[in-house]
Amino acid sequence: MAEKLKIIPLGGLDEIGKNITVLEYGKDMIVVDCGVAFPEEDMYGVDLVIPDFSYLVANQKKLRGMFITHGHEDHIGSIPYCMQQVVCPIHGTAMTNGLIRLKLEEHGLANKVKLHTHKPGDTVKAGCFTVEFIHVNHSIADAVAFAIRTPVGTVVFTGDFKIDPTAKDGMTDLARLGELGKEGVLALLADSTNVERQGYTPSETVVAESLDRQFKNCDQRIIVTTFASNMHRIQAVLSTAQRYGRKVAVTGRSMENMLKVAQELGYLKVPAGAIVDLNAIKSLPKNKVVIVSTGSQGENMSALYRMAFSTHKQIDITAGDRIIISASAIPGNEKAVSRIINELYRKGAEVVYEKSQGLHVSGHACQEELKIIHGLLKPRFFLPVHGEQRHLQIHAKLANAMGMPPRNIRIGEIGTVFEFTGKTCKTNGTVTAGKVFVDGTGVGDVGSVVLRDRKHLAQDGMIVVCVNLSSQDGSVISGPDIITRGFIYVKESEELMDELRQVAVEAIERCGGKRRRDWATIKSAIKNDLSGYLYKHTKRNPMILPVIMEI
Amino acid sequence: MAEKLKIIPLGGLDEIGKNITVLEYGKDMIVVDCGVAFPEEDMYGVDLVIPDFSYLVANQKKLRGMFITHGHEDHIGSIPYCMQQVVCPIHGTAMTNGLIRLKLEEHGLANKVKLHTHKPGDTVKAGCFTVEFIHVNHSIADAVAFAIRTPVGTVVFTGDFKIDPTAKDGMTDLARLGELGKEGVLALLADSTNVERQGYTPSETVVAESLDRQFKNCDQRIIVTTFASNMHRIQAVLSTAQRYGRKVAVTGRSMENMLKVAQELGYLKVPAGAIVDLNAIKSLPKNKVVIVSTGSQGENMSALYRMAFSTHKQIDITAGDRIIISASAIPGNEKAVSRIINELYRKGAEVVYEKSQGLHVSGHACQEELKIIHGLLKPRFFLPVHGEQRHLQIHAKLANAMGMPPRNIRIGEIGTVFEFTGKTCKTNGTVTAGKVFVDGTGVGDVGSVVLRDRKHLAQDGMIVVCVNLSSQDGSVISGPDIITRGFIYVKESEELMDELRQVAVEAIERCGGKRRRDWATIKSAIKNDLSGYLYKHTKRNPMILPVIMEI
Repeated sequence: MAEKLKIIPLGGLDEIGKNITVLEYGKDMIVVDCGVAFPEEDMYGVDLVIPDFSYLVANQKKLRGMFITHGHEDHIGSIPYCMQQVVCPIHGTAMTNGLIRLKLEEHGLANKVKLHTHKPGDTVKAGCFTVEFIHVNHSIADAVAFAIRTPVGTVVFTGDFKIDPTAKDGMTDLARLGELGKEGVLALLADSTNVERQGYTPSETVVAESLDRQFKNCDQRIIVTTFASNMHRIQAVLSTAQRYGRKVAVTGRSMENMLKVAQELGYLKVPAGAIVDLNAIKSLPKNKVVIVSTGSQGENMSALYRMAFSTHKQIDITAGDRIIISASAIPGNEKAVSRIINELYRKGAEVVYEKSQGLHVSGHACQEELKIIHGLLKPRFFLPVHGEQRHLQIHAKLANAMGMPPRNIRIGEIGTVFEFTGKTCKTNGTVTAGKVFVDGTGVGDVGSVVLRDRKHLAQDGMIVVCVNLSSQDGSVISGPDIITRGFIYVKESEELMDELRQVAVEAIERCGGKRRRDWATIKSAIKNDLSGYLYKHTKRNPMILPVIMEI
Repeated sequence: MAEKLKIIPLGGLDEIGKNITVLEYGKDMIVVDCGVAFPEEDMYGVDLVIPDFSYLVANQKKLRGMFITHGHEDHIGSIPYCMQQVVCPIHGTAMTNGLIRLKLEEHGLANKVKLHTHKPGDTVKAGCFTVEFIHVNHSIADAVAFAIRTPVGTVVFTGDFKIDPTAKDGMTDLARLGELGKEGVLALLADSTNVERQGYTPSETVVAESLDRQFKNCDQRIIVTTFASNMHRIQAVLSTAQRYGRKVAVTGRSMENMLKVAQELGYLKVPAGAIVDLNAIKSLPKNKVVIVSTGSQGENMSALYRMAFSTHKQIDITAGDRIIISASAIPGNEKAVSRIINELYRKGAEVVYEKSQGLHVSGHACQEELKIIHGLLKPRFFLPVHGEQRHLQIHAKLANAMGMPPRNIRIGEIGTVFEFTGKTCKTNGTVTAGKVFVDGTGVGDVGSVVLRDRKHLAQDGMIVVCVNLSSQDGSVISGPDIITRGFIYVKESEELMDELRQVAVEAIERCGGKRRRDWATIKSAIKNDLSGYLYKHTKRNPMILPVIMEI
């Protein structure tokens, strides 16, 4: 029986972020992308969400390499966590590897992992797979799609992409995709992020033009915030600043890091003297200055946040400052962005952020662009990826409308094993896949129980009931003492505290007789009685923690 | 010295929601609106945010009445909380009072508070004030603006409004506003919600047309979700359903309540037999059924949520169901709405929600409509209200562009006292105003300390350290016992727990000598040592609660 090609998404399906997909054939395995997701609002205290790497760990002998489409967090962010468990060579373009290197250094892994740098057009052999790098447009420089030759046919990963015919670094390589389509493509895995949007995503040059309008005739200080990773955008800011005789200063750690990497690798052309130190701008007239800042998503403690709330060490917002938000809020960040905009207005700044101003364009393909890709590649099978359920299904419909029969379109879940021959695609069971939470330095030690408790504590706080009971006869030796946190303003609730103590005493006494030394029963009596009493009197449900010490 | 008119916003300025404004002259005071705000995401466990009523309580002898523009929560939601502290007559239109009555009944206040019902065109005397009710369009029936005659001039409150020339209940009474403008308006307080948007808000009839398109040729079950209070919208659903021979069933408590009130008061025309019981639709063919449901904001446990997540007792979503979301997500609710849409897709339903489909229009005036109001009323002074800082400032700019001098435009904060003569407006100090949190049945017993603790608990959980110390010499009699919640998965962290116990013992021992019975010092030593140890080893910062019992 011939081997089959397995394609196994371990992340990025039915969710936004933590994109990672396994390709496996016989004794060879490669991985495409290795991203993080950001915690949902009910994941209290969680810093990052990473994929479950169990399947890679179990198959590490097969692992021939990891291929990365581009340097955004949802495609590279989990690499250090993965490499702590399974080491393999990583392949990416120069910009992508520059960003991965920063991460590896931060985690002390720089010497452990080998990074291989390639250009669009290059092909890389990894076991029985041959991976071709294909230039695509995206909101970060040096993004690629992959055409992966496998023993049963060619698989194309678009990665995140759009089609920008006027991109400074050249349009997505449609010609090459067209050739692949003519040769025959077994399966396509394509970005679904913007599949709900009709038409085309506008070109990055639209933003450059809008920036020009904002700079023209502005005689005030200009502050621009955007995604630190969008070097095309930052290049446009630099060029516009130069045109209008303004010096550029940079604030925010990620922005500084990105700029450094991009400059070193030649992805950013900075005329001599164009960038100055943040402290140097104080001596310049306001109309000769641009500040490029982090904080476009309203992030707490970002440079823009600190400027808005007057906690930035070097820059104070002054009346008249023109603040250009060259970004749109990622779902979930709307309120945080609003909060900063309100503060900036309060300080008398002028804030330019409306969509109508053309100050931001998406990095993802809309419906018409996706149709072009489907039309060029004409794959036998299609797996929509990078999207929540609705994105995947709408993308499936789009492929269907392009003529692909529904049976050739597959929406799986993370962990689903898709098995391909040259002519068939079948799902064959699942492998371990899921969400692993990173909290501080802990990876995976916060799970559903801990989160449930945090949610409970967040909602109504907690009450600790401490009591010393006699080991002889279970009688109360001292206490019960009641301590609360996050429940109620205690100083104004002394009466309630007295009542709670009384309820606890009665609960202990009720457990007399033969159960008098059965601590578990006494604890549960205290819990039930207090909880019932509190719900009746306050309609609240704090966590109740009885502590019995035996003397 | 002649008396001055005081206008004091106690809510709704520099924030969204809890709209409430005081007008005071000599011995008379009236209040316009009395709404709630919904908690921000960092207000853990808070159910509602209401205004601080101290100023009303302190001046209750002056209070001649409360006037309500319309029945939305952000204009009526705090009435029961206010009436528990200060009782006064309430004046509103029939629909508004119907909704207020529901609230008063829920809080057992129905007999305590007198509701007076008026029609647009009516005028009501309250002390030295005369309040005229003026018809406006909004996303709830029976909304009004107020023209308030005061001894120093006329003050106009627009309330929430838009201008809908094709509204079923007639356009906003621009003619009357024009007359008032000719007579002379001292001050205008106008809705700023949509001031960021150019152009006009489309008419509600656009939605009716879009609904028709969705019903036409649909041979599946249709489920429509929208704001329960939007009776014009629900009337459109009913009429469309009738046109296509479909029976309507209703699910969700607030929808059922609203429908009852609206029907009783004649705001909803329901043909005989048009509405059927939810259980009755099971026997009808799918193409003869429409379900009208709550849940358009993705609310947990709303009817649509329960249908999507298969916990609705009567309705299961089945493949092919067409679900029409006739609403857009209020900022902050985007993710909750997304979550439901994804679940509906997963069940094979077709979900129609895109903005481009015209299935929702706002209830608030955009820039061109606001300009009409400013142009008609030509007030001497303008106070933008109902908006965050940016809305207020953009509205101020709009008024300025309409020719009003900046010195006549006033942006205050809640609690600011604006004093008017017939020709001047000065701010004169502030009165108590703020946010009061409602949690369960508690009003105001959760404040910043409790919220800070809840946030701390939510982030990293907590650790209780219990120890019995000798009252004689401070030696350890039993313990320390370590109990954690929301911190770490304990079963896999036994080693860490042992170390924590050890750190606690060492902290206690370190406090030997003369401080050995100084419990406060010992507690703080335990706290510091554990906290330092934990941050070093886990980069987490749980709340640490040392409990010392003296034996």
